[in-house]
Amino acid sequence: MLSLQMQGSHVVIGGWIEDLRKLGKITFLTVRDVTGLAQIIVKDEKVIPEDLTRQSVILVRGIIQSTKARDFQYEIKADDVEILTKAVHPLPIDPIGRLESNIDNRLNARALDLRNQRVASVFKIRHQVLASLRKELEKRKFIEITTPKIIGSASEGGANLFSLEYFGKKAYLAQSPQLYKEQLTIGLERVFEISSFYRAEKSHTGRHLSEFTSVDIEAAFFDYTDVMDVLENLVVSVFSDVEKNCKQELNTLERKLQIPKQPFDTITYSDALDELGKAGINLNFGDDLLDSHLKIIGTNHPGFFFLTDWPMSLKPFYIHEKDDEAKISRSFDLQYGHLELSSGGRRLHEPAKIRARLIEQGLDPASFEDHLRTFDWGMPPHSGWGMGLDRLMTVIIGTDNVREVVLYPRDPERLTP
Amino acid sequence: MLSLQMQGSHVVIGGWIEDLRKLGKITFLTVRDVTGLAQIIVKDEKVIPEDLTRQSVILVRGIIQSTKARDFQYEIKADDVEILTKAVHPLPIDPIGRLESNIDNRLNARALDLRNQRVASVFKIRHQVLASLRKELEKRKFIEITTPKIIGSASEGGANLFSLEYFGKKAYLAQSPQLYKEQLTIGLERVFEISSFYRAEKSHTGRHLSEFTSVDIEAAFFDYTDVMDVLENLVVSVFSDVEKNCKQELNTLERKLQIPKQPFDTITYSDALDELGKAGINLNFGDDLLDSHLKIIGTNHPGFFFLTDWPMSLKPFYIHEKDDEAKISRSFDLQYGHLELSSGGRRLHEPAKIRARLIEQGLDPASFEDHLRTFDWGMPPHSGWGMGLDRLMTVIIGTDNVREVVLYPRDPERLTP
Repeated sequence: MLSLQMQGSHVVIGGWIEDLRKLGKITFLTVRDVTGLAQIIVKDEKVIPEDLTRQSVILVRGIIQSTKARDFQYEIKADDVEILTKAVHPLPIDPIGRLESNIDNRLNARALDLRNQRVASVFKIRHQVLASLRKELEKRKFIEITTPKIIGSASEGGANLFSLEYFGKKAYLAQSPQLYKEQLTIGLERVFEISSFYRAEKSHTGRHLSEFTSVDIEAAFFDYTDVMDVLENLVVSVFSDVEKNCKQELNTLERKLQIPKQPFDTITYSDALDELGKAGINLNFGDDLLDSHLKIIGTNHPGFFFLTDWPMSLKPFYIHEKDDEAKISRSFDLQYGHLELSSGGRRLHEPAKIRARLIEQGLDPASFEDHLRTFDWGMPPHSGWGMGLDRLMTVIIGTDNVREVVLYPRDPERLTP
Repeated sequence: MLSLQMQGSHVVIGGWIEDLRKLGKITFLTVRDVTGLAQIIVKDEKVIPEDLTRQSVILVRGIIQSTKARDFQYEIKADDVEILTKAVHPLPIDPIGRLESNIDNRLNARALDLRNQRVASVFKIRHQVLASLRKELEKRKFIEITTPKIIGSASEGGANLFSLEYFGKKAYLAQSPQLYKEQLTIGLERVFEISSFYRAEKSHTGRHLSEFTSVDIEAAFFDYTDVMDVLENLVVSVFSDVEKNCKQELNTLERKLQIPKQPFDTITYSDALDELGKAGINLNFGDDLLDSHLKIIGTNHPGFFFLTDWPMSLKPFYIHEKDDEAKISRSFDLQYGHLELSSGGRRLHEPAKIRARLIEQGLDPASFEDHLRTFDWGMPPHSGWGMGLDRLMTVIIGTDNVREVVLYPRDPERLTP
């Protein structure tokens, strides 16, 4: 890191030309590298290579001196400017962001888009979010696992799975680590995974992608309320860490982060039906909550809140019933207003119950044999959740398009770059 | 964590029955949970449920008291033993490891295999390795990225890629993040990824899998010697952290870890040819080093060493030549004896040179257009490497089969569980 205290020192810096102005014989360059922006002043015209273009990568040799420029603490008086790579013109998008480009053009030129400091800030914040999640899970004795993404049978029903040929056999891309993370509670008790998963769904929304990053945990001897506590504390820690460690990035994004207040509100599915009833929408117990319904409930609860006690009929086969009422499940979603961020619950650990639930849901227990036999080996009671990292990022950044927080998003129309 | 200081306290513990012995009317149980092993003593026969089996999950209520048992500091005198899940008998493998099972049977029962503390220790160490890598890369200002695993064109030649149908288009599973991580040096300068990648190769060795975890870095303005420094320091930090933080796991594995001495030895490709010549094997400059050759070189250099300055003809199209001699590349492998752990180098950043190299290697520049155009946007000089995490783990654990360090390995024969 350079500073005015190094006045008189000879320095060499490499970076991208962000701006370039001539005033008479003097050329002013602003050059950006990972540490920030520096002003370069070139008094000798011969030092400036011909055809110097914005976003070209240059190496500058010069001396640090004081400056009159308001935005800089020092400037570098250059005796040599060497072009390492010349950027062509015109560029496909304006990487400084003065001219706004639509998201498709930006994604087609994503590498260049990242020279926009607003865009780079998003991914620096994402780095912090990943680091915070791991730090907090490690603190709670969760072990990081890597489950297979190429799987031999279509788990969880098999809808919306990409299939591929695997050495002459049919295989699928995993949609979640659900079955594996449950199995691993037998040996490792508390596990987590942060990884890419795949969904072959023809969705065209701001919150669905075909390839997404999921944060998953599973814990032996935890009930669903215990993993809800983990989730709530994790989300709050992520917000606090971003607020503390990403001040510059939040500044660049002109984003003021509110640390969520604890405890998060909790409403049950039945409370949600009541709220909808008051808004003139009458649903029966067992009806799913559609986007339009969640919009209304999200308006009543604009921040983070848990939506719990869903009907068993709306939940996957592995979710545990409430002991007192078999129709209600030990499950929850974490919502941010109308946006579902996470879904989780207590899991069934008795194989006979799981078999019955599979049949109830029209699934064939035979295609789950590899999974079911693990329940005979001492499966502990366990609970867990999965959270869409990309969705959490949209909440932190304040955008309604998940493509803003994924480097190279994949959707039904987008397979490149 | 329980201790003898809690003598007289009523406690509840949940865990797996590791052993079960009757001495007259008294039953001794050892019960393991994530914190370790506890001895349970049951004096009242009525308290013991019928048909209690090893590896069943139980909840024990009792009082902490002092013990005469040599291996325990305290024992729990139980007034209640509740079965949460009963394990069936016989189990497919012996999870205590007294009876050794072959690796195939163990992988078929991986969840249970992990109740063997030797196996669990491997994956607890893997957790530490991942944490160390991220900590050290973060320290060096590398930003964690997630690149797409579903890609639209067969990069790097396209051999050995799994293909899939993606909404009516042909797509592939990525073998490495190579092209994406290079592009991202434009916007983020220093990036890393730790993720699963895929190789459709019919290999049947102890060091190849179809799905593997790769550690990748790429850094703007770094030459290949700079990223070699990063790699060397990273490996040493990983060993130090494992040694410091995984004492119990290393103990369980009866593994004494040697912290590698720095600096690592460096030999050039030409040195290697000389060494082979002395062993009676005469290769010409440009010949690849086969496994049999690396065995000999690995015997001369049994620990970590760099093998540098490979012929350009043996390297992928993106590798940079040495300025002084175009036939030699700015590249390296990190070896552990005969085992290749990592491969890296300085990359070409001038698009015209890359196009020429693609044609030289019989590849079509047209199928790399999305990648090549990014080089016109101000691509910095850059270097990087990729390291097989699973291979590094085999070195740390001291095994010659990568299946020992992957939870659910995938190879041409193995797609389940």
